[in-house]
Amino acid sequence: MTSAKYDVLAIGNAIFDVLVQTDEGFLASHGMTKGSMALIDEAQAASIYKDMGPATEMSGGSAANTIVGIAGFGGRAAYVGKVKDDQIGRLYAHDIRAAKVAFETPAAAGGPATGCSYILVTPDGERTMNTYLGAAQDLSPADIDPETIAAASIVYLEGYLWDPKDAKDAFLKASKIAHDAKRQVALTLSDAFCVDRYRDEFLTLMRNGTVDLIFANETELHSLYQTSDFDTALAQLRKDIPLGVVTRSEKGCIVATKDGTTAVPACPIQKLVDTTGAGDLFAAGFLFGLVRNAGYENAGRLGALAAAEVIQHIGARPQVSLKDLAQSQGLPV
Amino acid sequence: MTSAKYDVLAIGNAIFDVLVQTDEGFLASHGMTKGSMALIDEAQAASIYKDMGPATEMSGGSAANTIVGIAGFGGRAAYVGKVKDDQIGRLYAHDIRAAKVAFETPAAAGGPATGCSYILVTPDGERTMNTYLGAAQDLSPADIDPETIAAASIVYLEGYLWDPKDAKDAFLKASKIAHDAKRQVALTLSDAFCVDRYRDEFLTLMRNGTVDLIFANETELHSLYQTSDFDTALAQLRKDIPLGVVTRSEKGCIVATKDGTTAVPACPIQKLVDTTGAGDLFAAGFLFGLVRNAGYENAGRLGALAAAEVIQHIGARPQVSLKDLAQSQGLPV
Repeated sequence: MTSAKYDVLAIGNAIFDVLVQTDEGFLASHGMTKGSMALIDEAQAASIYKDMGPATEMSGGSAANTIVGIAGFGGRAAYVGKVKDDQIGRLYAHDIRAAKVAFETPAAAGGPATGCSYILVTPDGERTMNTYLGAAQDLSPADIDPETIAAASIVYLEGYLWDPKDAKDAFLKASKIAHDAKRQVALTLSDAFCVDRYRDEFLTLMRNGTVDLIFANETELHSLYQTSDFDTALAQLRKDIPLGVVTRSEKGCIVATKDGTTAVPACPIQKLVDTTGAGDLFAAGFLFGLVRNAGYENAGRLGALAAAEVIQHIGARPQVSLKDLAQSQGLPV
Repeated sequence: MTSAKYDVLAIGNAIFDVLVQTDEGFLASHGMTKGSMALIDEAQAASIYKDMGPATEMSGGSAANTIVGIAGFGGRAAYVGKVKDDQIGRLYAHDIRAAKVAFETPAAAGGPATGCSYILVTPDGERTMNTYLGAAQDLSPADIDPETIAAASIVYLEGYLWDPKDAKDAFLKASKIAHDAKRQVALTLSDAFCVDRYRDEFLTLMRNGTVDLIFANETELHSLYQTSDFDTALAQLRKDIPLGVVTRSEKGCIVATKDGTTAVPACPIQKLVDTTGAGDLFAAGFLFGLVRNAGYENAGRLGALAAAEVIQHIGARPQVSLKDLAQSQGLPV
């Protein structure tokens, strides 16, 4: 194993977020399931957007939010994801590079537009996402550069990659390269409905060692093991993966290994504004702590801190330096 | 004079905002004049954007922000401005229509991209704008529909319209139609440097009755009359225009007529985040009060309220219902 050029390399669907604060009635009238991510086609996107209020736009995408968070802590970061070479794709590429993340995936010259997620934020702060994958559908194994993948201590993948047709092959290629280079592979389960679509495949990835670390929230964990009992699900997770991190909103997180579990509290907040990116930024802090050998408890605290920052404003990218924030809290960065 | 279909129709440069929080050093290293609006070409835009951090995007444009504010108070509102039929132009058109503003100006099929302003927000909350006019350069008298203009109680124009080559002709056409229909014409002076570029023309518009109402901030007023003495400038303003409204940041505003002046205090705020849109939203509240015959003092208070809302978050469009906000303060809406 050579020394790593990157702390973390993330692979995900590159998605531009179109965010609007709305009321519960909007979700109901469009048949949306609150808190979930639904895949939509171009016609559905047009139909939802037509009814949405004035929006704010910013770059998003689950793994991309995470990797931007890692760079925000001072981590050496790289991203693989597919945009089109269109106006929105150029905004997207700017933002991730401006966050000091290496991003070299070639933009698609043709095909569908850069992907967008239409995100409804309700007064309780919950976000409901409707994602048009667009150019993200064209991420393929050819976008996985072996040298770059092997240069990262951890490769971080999102479960959402199971949705586009060729991205899972890119995922598997990246995992193999990483393991051949003695690196670690992490996966976030992304969304309870995503878990429902690919439950068996995700369990196989865990059980056959394709991934070494799983991030899940409670709902995703319950979906994975089709149980409503948390302890049952957690016990199963500990059998299936060397390291599992389960986020539980204001109850904090549980870090689970074969040897035991560690509970880490959530970080207090003043006001919940928008949960978009909460899980993504938790993963950012945890992975950064992990790769810098801060220990599970400190890693969990870094995750909680980043999640707390991102849920107190609109949008899934941090608005302050996470490194400064962590230092102000006496956390190791 | 027939009854009006719209309370206010605004005409301006349709500009998409790309906002980033940055430090003073960024302004210095790019030779930017803090607090001003500088016109930039495509090459300069690329050069500035390349160096900017991760951004947030939302629709902007001075008169457009004002008209969205008027709609937010419950006013009947229309907008004339030129975007291109590109991805950003479609976001722009969505946002203004979603704000319940009538917007029928045809998007340009070719030519430059939809205009963008690269806005740097410093820690003191001040904004410094660098605007690439793009498709806004193509606003022309052909975009001024006489029937629509004549249907608005007040036509509101921005001084920035003097920058694109044909927009001033659109401006003059609109003013004539409005006056022929016995409507009022209002102008904001927009920016001290803009005033410096077109001082004589703006004074002519005021003195020959092309406009009936002027909005200016202190800096713009001083630039207009090339004096550093506020009272001298104010006295001159009262000679040159039937109604002048001068905003003075935390000192509130002065409503000036030939008969006298009325001072209205600013609205207290918790934290200044971003001054982008402060003057635009002040004008929204004032014009709404004026058209609803609320009296100058209440109009000034509505302006102060809307300005206070918009400077407490990033971006130049209100994030709450201005109607609800005004009602909660006991103001007439």
